[in-house]
Amino acid sequence: MATLGDIGVAATINILSAFAFLSAFAILRIQPINDRVYFPKWYLKGLRSSPLQTGTLVSKFVNLDFRSYLRFLSWMPAALQMPEPELIDHAGLDSAVYLRIYLIGLKIFIPIACLGFAVMVPVNWTNKTLEHSKLKYSNIDLLSISNVPLGSNRFWTHLVMAYVFTFWTCYVLKREYEIVAAMRLHFLASEHRRPDQFTVLVRNVPPDPDESVTQLVEHFFLVNHPDHYLTHQVVNNANKLSELVNKKKKMQNWLDFYQLKYSRNPARKPSTKTGFLGLWGKTVDAIDFYTSKIETLKKEISLEKDKVMSSGKSVIPAAFVSFKTRWGASVCAQTQQTRNPTLWLTDWAPEPRDVYWDNLAIPFVSLTIRRLIIFVAYFFLTFFFMIPIAIVQSLANIEGIEKALPFLRPIIEVKVIKSFIQGFLPGIALKIFLIFLPDILMLMSKFEGFISRSALERRSATRYYIFLFINVFLGSIITGTAFQQLDNFMHQSANDIPKTIGTSIPMKATFFITYIMVDGWAGVAGEILRLKPLIVYHLKNFFLVKTEKDREEAMDPGTVGFNTGEPQIQLYFLLGLVYAVVTPFLLPFIIVFFALAFVVYRHQVINVYNQEYESAAAFWPDVHGRIITALIVSQLLLMGLLSTKEAAQSTPLLITLPILTIWFHRFCKGRYEPAFVRYPLQEAMMKDTLERAREPNLNLKSFLQIAYIHPVFKEVEECESDPASEESDQEPVLIPTKRQSRMNTPLPSKHSGSMTSLG
Amino acid sequence: MATLGDIGVAATINILSAFAFLSAFAILRIQPINDRVYFPKWYLKGLRSSPLQTGTLVSKFVNLDFRSYLRFLSWMPAALQMPEPELIDHAGLDSAVYLRIYLIGLKIFIPIACLGFAVMVPVNWTNKTLEHSKLKYSNIDLLSISNVPLGSNRFWTHLVMAYVFTFWTCYVLKREYEIVAAMRLHFLASEHRRPDQFTVLVRNVPPDPDESVTQLVEHFFLVNHPDHYLTHQVVNNANKLSELVNKKKKMQNWLDFYQLKYSRNPARKPSTKTGFLGLWGKTVDAIDFYTSKIETLKKEISLEKDKVMSSGKSVIPAAFVSFKTRWGASVCAQTQQTRNPTLWLTDWAPEPRDVYWDNLAIPFVSLTIRRLIIFVAYFFLTFFFMIPIAIVQSLANIEGIEKALPFLRPIIEVKVIKSFIQGFLPGIALKIFLIFLPDILMLMSKFEGFISRSALERRSATRYYIFLFINVFLGSIITGTAFQQLDNFMHQSANDIPKTIGTSIPMKATFFITYIMVDGWAGVAGEILRLKPLIVYHLKNFFLVKTEKDREEAMDPGTVGFNTGEPQIQLYFLLGLVYAVVTPFLLPFIIVFFALAFVVYRHQVINVYNQEYESAAAFWPDVHGRIITALIVSQLLLMGLLSTKEAAQSTPLLITLPILTIWFHRFCKGRYEPAFVRYPLQEAMMKDTLERAREPNLNLKSFLQIAYIHPVFKEVEECESDPASEESDQEPVLIPTKRQSRMNTPLPSKHSGSMTSLG
Repeated sequence: MATLGDIGVAATINILSAFAFLSAFAILRIQPINDRVYFPKWYLKGLRSSPLQTGTLVSKFVNLDFRSYLRFLSWMPAALQMPEPELIDHAGLDSAVYLRIYLIGLKIFIPIACLGFAVMVPVNWTNKTLEHSKLKYSNIDLLSISNVPLGSNRFWTHLVMAYVFTFWTCYVLKREYEIVAAMRLHFLASEHRRPDQFTVLVRNVPPDPDESVTQLVEHFFLVNHPDHYLTHQVVNNANKLSELVNKKKKMQNWLDFYQLKYSRNPARKPSTKTGFLGLWGKTVDAIDFYTSKIETLKKEISLEKDKVMSSGKSVIPAAFVSFKTRWGASVCAQTQQTRNPTLWLTDWAPEPRDVYWDNLAIPFVSLTIRRLIIFVAYFFLTFFFMIPIAIVQSLANIEGIEKALPFLRPIIEVKVIKSFIQGFLPGIALKIFLIFLPDILMLMSKFEGFISRSALERRSATRYYIFLFINVFLGSIITGTAFQQLDNFMHQSANDIPKTIGTSIPMKATFFITYIMVDGWAGVAGEILRLKPLIVYHLKNFFLVKTEKDREEAMDPGTVGFNTGEPQIQLYFLLGLVYAVVTPFLLPFIIVFFALAFVVYRHQVINVYNQEYESAAAFWPDVHGRIITALIVSQLLLMGLLSTKEAAQSTPLLITLPILTIWFHRFCKGRYEPAFVRYPLQEAMMKDTLERAREPNLNLKSFLQIAYIHPVFKEVEECESDPASEESDQEPVLIPTKRQSRMNTPLPSKHSGSMTSLG
Repeated sequence: MATLGDIGVAATINILSAFAFLSAFAILRIQPINDRVYFPKWYLKGLRSSPLQTGTLVSKFVNLDFRSYLRFLSWMPAALQMPEPELIDHAGLDSAVYLRIYLIGLKIFIPIACLGFAVMVPVNWTNKTLEHSKLKYSNIDLLSISNVPLGSNRFWTHLVMAYVFTFWTCYVLKREYEIVAAMRLHFLASEHRRPDQFTVLVRNVPPDPDESVTQLVEHFFLVNHPDHYLTHQVVNNANKLSELVNKKKKMQNWLDFYQLKYSRNPARKPSTKTGFLGLWGKTVDAIDFYTSKIETLKKEISLEKDKVMSSGKSVIPAAFVSFKTRWGASVCAQTQQTRNPTLWLTDWAPEPRDVYWDNLAIPFVSLTIRRLIIFVAYFFLTFFFMIPIAIVQSLANIEGIEKALPFLRPIIEVKVIKSFIQGFLPGIALKIFLIFLPDILMLMSKFEGFISRSALERRSATRYYIFLFINVFLGSIITGTAFQQLDNFMHQSANDIPKTIGTSIPMKATFFITYIMVDGWAGVAGEILRLKPLIVYHLKNFFLVKTEKDREEAMDPGTVGFNTGEPQIQLYFLLGLVYAVVTPFLLPFIIVFFALAFVVYRHQVINVYNQEYESAAAFWPDVHGRIITALIVSQLLLMGLLSTKEAAQSTPLLITLPILTIWFHRFCKGRYEPAFVRYPLQEAMMKDTLERAREPNLNLKSFLQIAYIHPVFKEVEECESDPASEESDQEPVLIPTKRQSRMNTPLPSKHSGSMTSLG
C-alpha cells in the first residue's frame, strides 16, 4: 500500500508533466504558424482571417515578441473572463451547459471536502485501530474509516455526514436542474426563427398503392391539421449519392497533392499506379489520371442526383412537415395521429444539422428488433470483452511474431527491443480496444436507429458510462474481469455484494488518487496541447493546401465530445461521492481535477471547439441521472461497509437514504424533465403572437421550403456551380453561420477584443 | 404428500359443495321474492319492474311451477347466448373485456394442457427415479418433473416445451391485445356524444392575487387555445356538504324504520334514546326526534350549499375545460401547457361518473410526497403484516379471554366450545385482515391522489396482486412469512433464489390443486349464490322498504370488482404457467376454474352487476403486463429447477427466454398501449367532421355546461324539489341511463326475451 510519500512522488511527477504540457501549449499557441490549430473557432466564426502579428517573413511563422512568452499563463484568466451569456452566444448552449458540469463538481465537492476535513479526519485520525492491529497500513489509511474500531459509536458521525453530503448534493443538483431548465427555455424562447421550431418529423408513413408519399403526407395533414399545415419535404434515400460525393472528394485530394508536387518540382511529372493504394498496376500520369477519374465521377454524380430527385423510388416513407405556427408544430409533435401508434409517428424535427439522415426510414418492428440485438450485443461487449482480447494477447507474443514473420527475428532478439515488446505487447490489444470503444458504441447507437446526432451521442454516453462503471470502477475495486465479477455476484447474496465492494473500497483509495492524477490532471493538460490536430494540420498544410480555403478545411476544431467526455467526468463524481465519507483525503485531488478541467475546457470551448449541432442542453437529464446514480451507489457501498464494522444499528437509517434519493430523483424528473422533452404551448403561442405582430407579411413557406434537404444535394449543387470548389458545407444555408470565412473579416465583436490581446 | 386418492376425495368434496351452491342458486333464483337479488341489472336498466310470474298471492313469493325446477341449469347456456356486441351494449365494455380475461385463460391453457398430457406426461412417467429413491412420493409426483433422473437428456423436452408454451402464450396475448385495443377504439368511436370527449381536466391552476380561478382559467385557454376553447366549470370543495347529505340520509333511514314499525303496530308509539346508537340518554318519541333532526339537517344543507355555491373560497384550483371539438380536447389533453410542468396539468377528463372528486385539489409536491409515504407504507404492509396479527393472536387466546371477561369462563370451559375457540381464534385475526385488505389498499390508492375511480381500482389491483404473489404464492412454496422470505433472499445469492423456489415447486403441486378447488371451484360457485346481498336485501325489505323506489334502493347489484377479482384470476395464470412444464397434471383443474368462472361471471354481468363507470377497458395493459410477469416468473423458476437437476447445458437457452419475453412485452407496449392512454387526432377529426355534417346547429355549450357538477349538488337539488325522496342518483343527468325504473317498463329488447324465459 502506498504511503503518503509515494503519493507525494506520484503527485510531483504528474504535476510536472501537467506543467510541461501547459508550458508547451503556452509556447506553441503564440506561434503564428499554429494559430489555426489553437484558435480555429475564431476563424470559423469569421472573426479572424490571419494571425494577428504582422511584420517580417519570419515573424509570420515564429513569434519573436519575447514579452508574450512572459505572459504564458495569461490564457487562464482570459478563459474565465467571458461571461456566460456571451459564451452561449459564442459557442452555443450545449457547450456552455457542458462546462457547468465541471462547475457542479466544484460546487458539490468543495463544501464536502471542507466538512470532511473538519469533521471526519479528526474522528478517523484519533483512533488507534490500525496501530494496534498488525496490518500493513499507510498514513492515508489513518485518515480513513478503516482506522475506526469495530462497533464504535463514532460511526454515527459517518452516518450523519452521509446524510449531510446527500442533502447537499441533492440541493446543488436541484438548483442546477432548475437553472439549466430555465436556460434552455430562455434559449429556445429568445432564439431567432429557426426551421425546426415549425417542423415535425413524420416517420413510418404507411405505403399506399394509389398515392405517392408526398401526396399521402399532404392529404393526411390537410385533413387532420387543417388550420395549421403549411408545407412538407419528403426525404430521399441519398446514401449512394453521398458515397459518390465522398469518393470524388478523395480523388480531388489526391489531385491536389500531385498538382502541388508538380508545381514545386516542375522538372518531373508525378506518376501513380492504377492499382490498390497506388502500390501496383500500370504506371500513369497522376494528374491526368485523377482529372479523368473526377470527370467520370462528376457525370455519375449528376446522373445519380437526377435519378434520386426525379424518380419516386428513392423517396423513403418519412417527411418533414412544416406548420404555419409554432403552436401547430408543437401540437403535432406531442400528439398521436392515428389508431395505429406505429404509423405516422411524429416527433420534433431535430435541427437540420442535427438530423442523422441514414436512420430516417427504419420501420417500427425493425426498430424494436434492432434494440433487442443491440441490448444483447452490448451486454456481451461489457461483460465478455476480455475474451477476444485475451485471445489476441495469447497470439501476439514474441514467439508468435517470430514464427509468423521470421525475417524480423534479428531485430526482435535485440535485448532492449525484446523487453520493450514484451512489456508493451500484452497491453496493446486492450489499449486499442479502449481507444475504439467510443466508436464501437457510437456504431451501436447508429444501428439502433436514433434519428438525431445528439440522441446518438447521448445514448453512446450512457453506454460508455456503464462500461466505465463496471470495468473501471468495480473492476479496480474487486480485481477481476467483468465476467468474473458477474459470476461472483451471481453466487453471492444480495446482502453480500455491497459488503464485498464496501470493504475493499478504503483499501483502493491510493490507487484511485493515482488514477485521478494520471487520467485527470495530466490528461486534461494534454487535451489543451491538441497534439494530434497540431500534427495533422501541419501535414495537410504541407501536402494539400493551395488556397486559404483549403487551409480552412485543414483545421480540425473538433467538438466537446459529449459521448466520451461526460462519462469520464461522471467517474470522478462517483469516486468523489463514494470516498467522501470513507476517505475524505481523496477529495482535494478531485477538486483540483474539476478546477483545472473547467479552465481548460472553457478555453477550448471559446477558442477551439466548433459544435456541429445545437441540442439546447438536451443532455442534462442524463447528467443529472448519472450523478444521482453515483449518489445511490455511494450510499449502498457505505451500507455494505458499515455492516461489516458491526454498526448494524445504523442500517435502518442507511436504508432510508437511497429511498429518499430515488424519491428526490422522481420529483426532479416530474418537475424539470418535461422542459427537455416537450415544448409548452404557452411559449409557442407567445412567440407566434409576437411574430405576427412584428412581421405580418412574413413568407414562412419560402423560409421553410428548403430547410430540410439532405446535405449531399447542397454539396452536389455547390460542386456544379463552382467546379473548383469541393467545400463541404455540412450546414444548410438557412442556419445563420459564418463558416465561409472567405468574406471579409467583420468588425471585431465586443469580446473578440479581449481575445485578440491574448494572441 | 397427498396421493391421487386424497386429491380424488378433495375433488369430490369440492365438486359436491360447488354443486350444492349451484343447486341452491337454481332454486332460490326462480323464487319471485328473490327476483331483485338475482336480476337487479334488468331492474336498473328499466327492462323489468316486477317478477314475471303473475297469479295468486303465494306465487308472488314462491315459485309453484314445478317444471321450472327441472330446468335448473338452464341459466348456463342462457348466460353464454348473448353475443358479445350485445353484451357490450348491455353491460358496458369494461365488463365485456373483463370476461375476456377468463377466455384468455381457456385459450392459453387448453392447448398447453393437451400438449402437456400428450408429451410431458409420458416423458415424466416412464422414469423410475422416484421408485428407486427411498423418498415418499405420491402418484402425482410420478407425472411431474421430479421423476426425471438427474442430468437426463429428457430435460430437453421440458426446455422445448417451455419455448412452445412461451410462444403460444405470447401469441394469444398479442392477438388479444390487438382485439381489445380494436374493441376499445371502436367503442370510443361509435359512442354517442359524451361530455368527456370534449373535456379536459386542468389541475394545479396557479394562484393569482388579481383573478379568481374561473377568470384565470378562461383567460388562459382563450389565449392558448383560441380557436378551440368553449367553456369551463370550476370545481367546488363540497366535502362538508356531502357529509351532511349522508348524515341526513342515515336519519331518513331510521325515520322510515320507525314509521314502518308504527304502521305495523299502531298501538305503541316507537321511542328511542338520544345517546350513542340509541343505547342510552333521554327516551323520546322516535318519529318526532328523527323528523326534527332531518329538518335541522335540511336547513344546514341548504345553508352550506349556498355558501359553497356563492363564495369563491370553496373553489379549488382545478377545472373542467370544454372545447368546441374533440380535436381541440385531444390536443389539450396530450400537450404541456406552460414552462412549469407542475402547473396547468391537463389530462383527459374521466367520465363524470368516474371522477373521484375528493382528490382533484392535491398539488404536485404533495402528490410526490404522498407517493413516497404510500410506497413505504405498502412495503411494510406486505412484508410485516404478520407482526400485528401475531400480536393480536398471542393476546386472543383462551386464557386471555378468561382473564379479561371472567364471567364467560363457565361457557368457555365447555369442551366443545373450548376446542372450537382454540381452533378458530388464531386464524380469525388473519382472516379479518385479509377481508379488509382490498379496502386498505383502496384507501392507500385514494390517499395517493388518483383522480378517477377506475385509476383507483387499477392501482389497488396492482398492489393486491403483488401482495398475493408474495404472501400466497411464494408464501406457500417456501413456507414462512414474507419477512422471513425477504431475510432469506437477502442472505442468498441471486442464483440461489430461483433454485430454492424452483426445487420446492414440484412438491407443492398437490397443495395448489386443493387450493384451486377450494378457492376457485367452490368460491366461484359461492359467488353466484350472492348470500350476503340476499340476506341484506330481505332484511332491508322487511325493515325499511315502503315504496317500490325504496325496494329498488335495497337492491345491491355490486360490480365486477376489478380490484379484488382480477388479481385472483392472475394467481391462476401464474400457477398454470409455472406448473405447465413442471406438473402438467395441475392444468385441468385450472381449466375447469376458468370455464366455470367464465360462465358464472358472464351470468352475473348480464343479470346482476351494475358497473358504476365506464373506463373503456383501460385496465387491459395491466392485465397483459401481469400475465407477462407470470410468464417470466415461470421461466426463472424453471431455470432454477433445471440447474439443480444437473441440466446446466440448457441454461443459456433458458436465459434467452425471459429476454425474449421482456422484448415481446416492450414491443406490445409500444404497439398497443398508446390506444389505452392517448386519443389519436385522426379519430377525433373524423368524429368532429361527421358531427358537423349531421348536426350543423348543435348547441354544444348547453350540452357541456352542467356535465361536470359535483354529484352532491344534484342530490341536494333533488331533495329540495322532492322532499319525500332521498333517491341518490350518482349519475349526472346527461349520461344515458335508465336507472329510474319508476317509468313504465319499456318494450322488452330483443335479448330480454331470452332472459325472461329464464325467470
